[in-house]
Amino acid sequence: MQDSPISPLFERLVIIGPGLIGSSLLRRACLDRTIARTLVTTDHNPQVCAHVTQLGIADEVHTELAAAVEGADGVILCIPVGAMGEVTEQIIPLLSPGTLLSEVGSTKVSVIRAVSPFLRPDIFFIPTHPMAGTEFSGPDAGFSTLFENRWCLITPNIETVTTETQKERTLSPLPQERENATRKIETLWQKTGAKTRRMDPIHHDKVCAMVSHLPHLLAFTICSTADDLADETRSEVLDYAASGFRDFTRIASSDPIMWRDIFLNNKEALLEMLARFMEDAQAMARAIRWEDSEFIMDRIERGRRIRHSLIDNKQA
Amino acid sequence: MQDSPISPLFERLVIIGPGLIGSSLLRRACLDRTIARTLVTTDHNPQVCAHVTQLGIADEVHTELAAAVEGADGVILCIPVGAMGEVTEQIIPLLSPGTLLSEVGSTKVSVIRAVSPFLRPDIFFIPTHPMAGTEFSGPDAGFSTLFENRWCLITPNIETVTTETQKERTLSPLPQERENATRKIETLWQKTGAKTRRMDPIHHDKVCAMVSHLPHLLAFTICSTADDLADETRSEVLDYAASGFRDFTRIASSDPIMWRDIFLNNKEALLEMLARFMEDAQAMARAIRWEDSEFIMDRIERGRRIRHSLIDNKQA
Repeated sequence: MQDSPISPLFERLVIIGPGLIGSSLLRRACLDRTIARTLVTTDHNPQVCAHVTQLGIADEVHTELAAAVEGADGVILCIPVGAMGEVTEQIIPLLSPGTLLSEVGSTKVSVIRAVSPFLRPDIFFIPTHPMAGTEFSGPDAGFSTLFENRWCLITPNIETVTTETQKERTLSPLPQERENATRKIETLWQKTGAKTRRMDPIHHDKVCAMVSHLPHLLAFTICSTADDLADETRSEVLDYAASGFRDFTRIASSDPIMWRDIFLNNKEALLEMLARFMEDAQAMARAIRWEDSEFIMDRIERGRRIRHSLIDNKQA
Repeated sequence: MQDSPISPLFERLVIIGPGLIGSSLLRRACLDRTIARTLVTTDHNPQVCAHVTQLGIADEVHTELAAAVEGADGVILCIPVGAMGEVTEQIIPLLSPGTLLSEVGSTKVSVIRAVSPFLRPDIFFIPTHPMAGTEFSGPDAGFSTLFENRWCLITPNIETVTTETQKERTLSPLPQERENATRKIETLWQKTGAKTRRMDPIHHDKVCAMVSHLPHLLAFTICSTADDLADETRSEVLDYAASGFRDFTRIASSDPIMWRDIFLNNKEALLEMLARFMEDAQAMARAIRWEDSEFIMDRIERGRRIRHSLIDNKQA
């Protein structure tokens, strides 16, 4: 009954980590009180907590995890993917039976593997990935419309990446309860304006390696390649960056710790996509060296075709 | 005296190839009649000529090179870099002594080598590279403000890439005349709103390989890597492209023939920069595989530093 128009989705929703994603979710939930009756947030840094209190985007702000999650029916981890396991370990003993536990990390397999050892069958763990963000971070960077018309991928099938023992320990014996929890988290994200889609965690990591992690890796890399050039050339790269370099490296200004964690936590899929890319780049180098005009044209045409598909998809 | 306020820079200026760059130059010169008294353009395609006549951006439009260049004191080749040699061969016998011959190709060494065998010591050949463009091409794509605040690189020292025999045959015995011609072409580009800078042709090709040609090569390549993925994943790459892929591949929609020519005509410098990039990408792959967190952070930080330099330079 919780998703009827008069009753909010959650009674007490706790956002752990009021950064870009967490504070945006809080801001949206402040505007739409059908998401949660009471909005709670927590950060280990007292200065962040004082600042979030000033911003007025939560009903309660705690420095202690225990005080925050007590009595919660929903908890969302909005922290770097490298910290998910540790925080889950701390909060699990404090959660009431039936609590919905979620997280918003950019990688899914490693997060599920980090969280699973601590799960209980009476806690519903539903991983999500709201594909939204800017190059800025922290509570001031958030805004209530961040998720509008963006995708939020939901990967409820955690059993595809956990061990057999974990499966028994972590999955509710009642599949319908899990399905209800999944629908509830989908409703939450739809209320923020996002479009939701369910996906297998392994497949999620491959898709994100291609659409996001590999482009970021290449952008960071070409910047450091340019940085290694002799002084004169390097300064000219900056002067003439408008010719392509600038657009190509725009995504290279995102948060370093977040990206280090993503690269390390999506190692397998990222290295696979990078290897495919390197083979293709080598083939292009060979075609240029041997002046294989037809091959080069084919590659350029395929690039343009993909770009046009993006334009048709209204993504570009 | 030609650059005094009342007398135009050129009496009869011929733009060979009224495409994106050529038609933009014509449009600008129509607005600022201190650039040329008579504006002439030529294209081998009669339909293009008819269309350019309709656009009203030139005083004379010819399908025949000979009719266009007769009596010219300035000729600018605005054609693909692969066609520069052939067109020069055709027009050189028709040019009056003292004519300034220029071109706007994106690569300099190969163009100078293609043009030089046909030069005469009484023709002043001044290569240029206006670093401006869009992903569109043809006479309709041009606009009069295309060059405003953009760089135009001038590479007058063609002797650094020509043979000794060519040097004697192609270079005017009077260095001051060459200097005057260089200043005249600089003035032309400054009148279009561009900032000019002189550069050695070999150095030009290295800088452009890094700031423009390599980013385009990588953007085309990652698009075809994505295109090779299994159907399901490929369609998802399009759905979720907003996460980085889209920005990263924006430059991959430019004209295929132009880019094929650029890749083939800047082979040496491009392959050098690509090799450096591949080494750096391999090092990054190795660091991810072995979880060398410090190395990864260093690369990400350097990427961000370069990005911040661009922002400080008001390029981003």
